Amino acid sequence: MSNEITEKAKETPGVSEKVKELDERIAKLEAKNNSLSIVLMSGDMDRVMGAFIIANGALAMGKEVTIFATFWGLDAIKKPSFSTSGRGFLERMVLWMRPKGPMKLPTSKMNFAGIGPKLFRYMMGKKNVEGLNSLMEMAMEFGLKVVACQMSMDVMGIKKEDLIDGVEVGGVAAFLSSSYKSNTTLFI
Amino acid sequence: MSNEITEKAKETPGVSEKVKELDERIAKLEAKNNSLSIVLMSGDMDRVMGAFIIANGALAMGKEVTIFATFWGLDAIKKPSFSTSGRGFLERMVLWMRPKGPMKLPTSKMNFAGIGPKLFRYMMGKKNVEGLNSLMEMAMEFGLKVVACQMSMDVMGIKKEDLIDGVEVGGVAAFLSSSYKSNTTLFI
Amino acid sequence: MSNEITEKAKETPGVSEKVKELDERIAKLEAKNNSLSIVLMSGDMDRVMGAFIIANGALAMGKEVTIFATFWGLDAIKKPSFSTSGRGFLERMVLWMRPKGPMKLPTSKMNFAGIGPKLFRYMMGKKNVEGLNSLMEMAMEFGLKVVACQMSMDVMGIKKEDLIDGVEVGGVAAFLSSSYKSNTTLFI
Repeated sequence: MSNEITEKAKETPGVSEKVKELDERIAKLEAKNNSLSIVLMSGDMDRVMGAFIIANGALAMGKEVTIFATFWGLDAIKKPSFSTSGRGFLERMVLWMRPKGPMKLPTSKMNFAGIGPKLFRYMMGKKNVEGLNSLMEMAMEFGLKVVACQMSMDVMGIKKEDLIDGVEVGGVAAFLSSSYKSNTTLFI
Repeated sequence: MSNEITEKAKETPGVSEKVKELDERIAKLEAKNNSLSIVLMSGDMDRVMGAFIIANGALAMGKEVTIFATFWGLDAIKKPSFSTSGRGFLERMVLWMRPKGPMKLPTSKMNFAGIGPKLFRYMMGKKNVEGLNSLMEMAMEFGLKVVACQMSMDVMGIKKEDLIDGVEVGGVAAFLSSSYKSNTTLFI
Repeated sequence: MSNEITEKAKETPGVSEKVKELDERIAKLEAKNNSLSIVLMSGDMDRVMGAFIIANGALAMGKEVTIFATFWGLDAIKKPSFSTSGRGFLERMVLWMRPKGPMKLPTSKMNFAGIGPKLFRYMMGKKNVEGLNSLMEMAMEFGLKVVACQMSMDVMGIKKEDLIDGVEVGGVAAFLSSSYKSNTTLFI
């Protein structure tokens, strides 16, 4: 009998260690609630605003937020003006046709050759809703991580210096690893 | 020796309590599979249908579903008609131009000035697929929670009474807290 | 005293079993990082490319990837040509108007009556970025699971033999069960 007790008791330290291991693994799963990942593929003003409103909300709640800007989403994080020298003809043409920065984005509906965005900016201003420009600045100040998609930049001939300051450049692996640390990943 | 056993055994109740704590934390993580969150930003008939088909499927499987309607997604949950009195000129103009309710939504492709939605409704009816109207009613009866985005409503001058009955009004914090209780969050 | 020790020690095996159970439940939650689910509702070349670039990245990292193709997303997985005989007039008309397969998809922006997709294919080729066609073939070879939405197929009169080989057909329940095994679900 006393032998049996000794046996069982000997198991206990093993159990304690195991419990500690489980605790750490659970904590890692719970920590996903502290991160949010967004793929920003759209360059429409309304969808980009949606992305940055959610990002700012999450940052204000103390979460880590990463936005992966790809394809048309790169339009939103371009500098308002940059030289397109040193690029091929097609790249220059595409860059010339695409909007440069948040103030030039079209709306996905009711764009009306650029009147829509002005209209919405005016209506937002009247209700004291921050414009996209300030939403983006706020988010960057609050620690938003922006990763620009290397492959899209290559295809469209966009260079890192064409993008707003503080942006990193990365690939799909960077996105996936961030997404797997996040409970929520949005494709916008 | 027997002292050592006593020592180890004394640890056991602490371990039991810890194990109970871990059990509860795991259950909380597992419970995420019982919830689904959707951001409905699109007001295109086909995308709204996608949202409500997924919502109905999840509700039928006993899950809690929350749809956050924002920007154009508000078009889907508007009443078929409401007075726009007591609003500014721009708000009235925008409300007048936007579709009111599920029967007026355009399709994202093949809209052809409104023929597309009629065509798809006819083709869906022939295959006994529920229309958007009934999908929405079914979902509400099954306990779907619909939260309309306060900020979008403010900007476009939409009031709570313009929206279908049973809709709540909330902000980005409400969305995030629901998303963090859900394994799956879709941005539609 | 020795009685008390016996009592506690008797609890230990129960604790060990419980710890094993918790371990398995945590492993199941952790396993979600090995899966990725995508709803592909869009049939725009750029968005479809986004879906398959992410899918290939995840497959290369050893993850299980499931794409649920629905609505316009079915365009991407159609065979380049198939007979539309044995279908109603409206179904034939819609099938005739929709693109057939990855080489015929329009871009969501800058489509210019089909010049856009050719332009982007050319620019991608110059930068040695795989075209959509090879991205799709690569993904299928790497074990991508593609599930076509039964309901959309019914409504548009699409048959299983109209779709590329290796595609399964399923409903919203199949999507939800895959999504609940995945940490990340994207709606594209």
